[in-house]
Amino acid sequence: MPVLLAPEQAPTLQTLLAQANVAGLDCIPVETKDAAQPRIRGLGSLLSAGPDEISFLSNPKLQSQLQQSGAAAVIMTQAAFDTLEAGSYAFRPVLCSEPYLMYALLAQWFDSHRLNNLPSGIHDSAIIAPTAQIAPGVAIGPHCVVEDGVRIGRGTRLGPGCIIGANSVLGADCLLHGRVTLYHHVTVGDRAILHSGCVLGADGFGFAPDPRQESGAWAKIAQIGGVVLGNDVEIGANTTVDRGAIENTLIGHGVKLDNQIMIGHNCQIGDHTAMAACVGVAGSTVIGKRCTIGGAAMLSGHLTLADDVNVSGGTAITSNVSQPGRYTGVYPYAEHVQWQRNAAVLPQLGALRRRIRALEKQES
Amino acid sequence: MPVLLAPEQAPTLQTLLAQANVAGLDCIPVETKDAAQPRIRGLGSLLSAGPDEISFLSNPKLQSQLQQSGAAAVIMTQAAFDTLEAGSYAFRPVLCSEPYLMYALLAQWFDSHRLNNLPSGIHDSAIIAPTAQIAPGVAIGPHCVVEDGVRIGRGTRLGPGCIIGANSVLGADCLLHGRVTLYHHVTVGDRAILHSGCVLGADGFGFAPDPRQESGAWAKIAQIGGVVLGNDVEIGANTTVDRGAIENTLIGHGVKLDNQIMIGHNCQIGDHTAMAACVGVAGSTVIGKRCTIGGAAMLSGHLTLADDVNVSGGTAITSNVSQPGRYTGVYPYAEHVQWQRNAAVLPQLGALRRRIRALEKQES
Amino acid sequence: MPVLLAPEQAPTLQTLLAQANVAGLDCIPVETKDAAQPRIRGLGSLLSAGPDEISFLSNPKLQSQLQQSGAAAVIMTQAAFDTLEAGSYAFRPVLCSEPYLMYALLAQWFDSHRLNNLPSGIHDSAIIAPTAQIAPGVAIGPHCVVEDGVRIGRGTRLGPGCIIGANSVLGADCLLHGRVTLYHHVTVGDRAILHSGCVLGADGFGFAPDPRQESGAWAKIAQIGGVVLGNDVEIGANTTVDRGAIENTLIGHGVKLDNQIMIGHNCQIGDHTAMAACVGVAGSTVIGKRCTIGGAAMLSGHLTLADDVNVSGGTAITSNVSQPGRYTGVYPYAEHVQWQRNAAVLPQLGALRRRIRALEKQES
Repeated sequence: MPVLLAPEQAPTLQTLLAQANVAGLDCIPVETKDAAQPRIRGLGSLLSAGPDEISFLSNPKLQSQLQQSGAAAVIMTQAAFDTLEAGSYAFRPVLCSEPYLMYALLAQWFDSHRLNNLPSGIHDSAIIAPTAQIAPGVAIGPHCVVEDGVRIGRGTRLGPGCIIGANSVLGADCLLHGRVTLYHHVTVGDRAILHSGCVLGADGFGFAPDPRQESGAWAKIAQIGGVVLGNDVEIGANTTVDRGAIENTLIGHGVKLDNQIMIGHNCQIGDHTAMAACVGVAGSTVIGKRCTIGGAAMLSGHLTLADDVNVSGGTAITSNVSQPGRYTGVYPYAEHVQWQRNAAVLPQLGALRRRIRALEKQES
Repeated sequence: MPVLLAPEQAPTLQTLLAQANVAGLDCIPVETKDAAQPRIRGLGSLLSAGPDEISFLSNPKLQSQLQQSGAAAVIMTQAAFDTLEAGSYAFRPVLCSEPYLMYALLAQWFDSHRLNNLPSGIHDSAIIAPTAQIAPGVAIGPHCVVEDGVRIGRGTRLGPGCIIGANSVLGADCLLHGRVTLYHHVTVGDRAILHSGCVLGADGFGFAPDPRQESGAWAKIAQIGGVVLGNDVEIGANTTVDRGAIENTLIGHGVKLDNQIMIGHNCQIGDHTAMAACVGVAGSTVIGKRCTIGGAAMLSGHLTLADDVNVSGGTAITSNVSQPGRYTGVYPYAEHVQWQRNAAVLPQLGALRRRIRALEKQES
Repeated sequence: MPVLLAPEQAPTLQTLLAQANVAGLDCIPVETKDAAQPRIRGLGSLLSAGPDEISFLSNPKLQSQLQQSGAAAVIMTQAAFDTLEAGSYAFRPVLCSEPYLMYALLAQWFDSHRLNNLPSGIHDSAIIAPTAQIAPGVAIGPHCVVEDGVRIGRGTRLGPGCIIGANSVLGADCLLHGRVTLYHHVTVGDRAILHSGCVLGADGFGFAPDPRQESGAWAKIAQIGGVVLGNDVEIGANTTVDRGAIENTLIGHGVKLDNQIMIGHNCQIGDHTAMAACVGVAGSTVIGKRCTIGGAAMLSGHLTLADDVNVSGGTAITSNVSQPGRYTGVYPYAEHVQWQRNAAVLPQLGALRRRIRALEKQES
């Protein structure tokens, strides 16, 4: 459950809407008879928010929850507000053309209280190479290791136990949660958010058959490329982005990767592409801008996906996708016995097609 | 191979059966002519166990291995014992109605020797916030970090390099292996076992389209909910459980998660549900009690699964499951060329059905 | 992008070919009119390599890039060289029967400069148990933890934050990147490369139903086996290999595992088998030698795969594979609407087959 601000820290609704970074968003509290400005201690869902919390309605399916809401204020569109019967609700409506975005910004604002209290400075137990260049205002947590030649930009924060490999670069205002690992020569832009357990720059999976050894043995191909992330990238917990074989692996601006994703060596991911958890992208695949890749989807190597491609969760993409659109390839589940019965026909599909053809010939 | 106790530490069979935590289990050594009580130094499989080890038979397929077993004693059901020809075996039979459970309890007993030797106390290199409340008897390993406001219950042990984020709570008698990460405001019940690399409380994957920025750009939705685990939960290595967007992500009592599982934000998992490795559960999905989810299964978001649902490995669940039972959806593998031939018919299935209908009309 | 050696460190082409570990490889620079020996500062791709870099041609599809290459020298086969028109290229050809292997060895050679500069000795912040046996020449990075009874072989290097559990063994000349975790009683051969976040020896997923507790509750089966890796194994970032229930989990010589792979307890993987990322292998499965397992493939438990089996990416192997060959089972993706239309027929496949049979009977 979200933490509430202490009452004395809580802003009035008016102040909250002004303080939150809502530049460019229209956001108008509806005048109510109750002129009192409620203090807003936090943000809750329609059903959980109490009389000192703000809530929002963005999913039309939840409209019926409005009347039950005990929130102090609820953000909604004008259209949703028009459906409300006067006197049927106790909260103060706030009209906004983008209630979901408004919610995002308010959640950021409330979370900023926690973020602003994160420790500052360099913890005594951190091991910082003398050749590392640490900008002013950088916070480095306990047991971090910052190796030779690293550069860290102003305002960036490292949680406990991060490792920044030799000659890697972190831009300004990044937030690394605990236990993030960058290998050597990994470059991260500004405002990155890197979650615990993610590993940037591990060796790509490169081996050459080595006929000089016993049958089947592999020679390692040292991975001498790097990884370069643009600005405003978020990388989820335990996600891995491998370094390039020779060239760099490239992650564009504004890319969002969820947890436990694997990006192979030499992939290129276009700006603002978002991937849900457990996706695997094999090496050298190039993904366009503004794509969305559903959870547990799998992309083969050496492919090209156009801009604005949406891959459904669980789908294996095994060839180039040159047109925007939504692509799917998931075996529909069923009760086990039914599945067994139908799946048993799959190996006969070619034969069944031939039998239909034969019947058609007999008919004609 | 399991470690054997030193002979002088090894209990007699009688003592072992008495000491092991087998309350409620009938467990009767069959009287043999050899009145000597063998000393039991460890637990092995039927074929590997030596004359100072105990073994068990729970899988009827392994019954034929009995005669070859060199174990000192073998736990089995009365039914299995009845099939044994007198004089055809060298071990001492131990009759038990639940030999597999008995094996589990004996393995725990032998492993407890190792666990009891784990280091105690708080290691000098651990960084403990002054506001953290550490109960008596807690062990905290080297290079751990325990942040502000954390509470750790009595008897809980942290391996090396664990991070317990601000205001998180660990119950009593938990075992955290090395390098476990809890973000802030994560609550864990009693007797949890958390494996290396697991991450509890990383941000859920929440973004709102932000039309104020360039096309396709995302605004982060700060994740201000928490994670709450019940008692007796085990979480595997490198598994991730994300914190809720607003409400908490909830893991019930006795839930067992294998390695590399991903639980999205706001999921709720019912008591005693078990998931094999590599499962992904997208956000806000609610899973009932006593479910089993096979390895690499994938559950879409915002679904509800009833109690007692069994999902086969590799299956994608993409809609609500309201009835108990086993559900499957796996593409049957074949030799590649055969697969190619049959898979090529899949995009024509709708057309084939129409052709069959046309033939049927002509027939009638 | 690969780092270039300083000009004064760069070898001549002749020296490079002699110094690189290319024993057994024919590798002959073609005599050119330009007798000057270029200095080679690094290795690049055909299109990116500059006048002080060497490149290679192994993929025939890239042959057309040769004429555009600005590399100082290009490794290629005699056959590729024979297609080059005299005067159409500016680089110095180097003939080799195995250009891809030659590239691998040269990349190793260039990377060795970085590896040789890794810190040596035992960092002050590492915690080493007095009973650990550390061979001469071992490097142990900051914040490592080496527990009781560990043995580490000569020349092995541990990056920052590694944990080596009690009684584990590392062979000689291993390279552990930062944040590798070995539980207790894990044995690793010589020359292993272990990447960040990998976990060897976490508990296998073993539970017995416990009728003494409430319905559905599980008793933990303590995992008292170990993990044993052969020589020349590479394990990718965030990959997990679980310890055996009773016997050991076994990884053969020369096995290469990519990132985020899960190997269940008691698996056995044959020599030189390679697995791409995100593969899951359930417990007790035995895989032969020289197999290749494509990314995100899933293998059920208790199976046996023969030697020289190739599993395609995304394929679920659910039964024994007794013959070498390539096996596939992937649902072909399509535009979403097309997929919907065809997938809807899958639950009717059995019925369709019956309808075809009925039609055939009427015909006959």
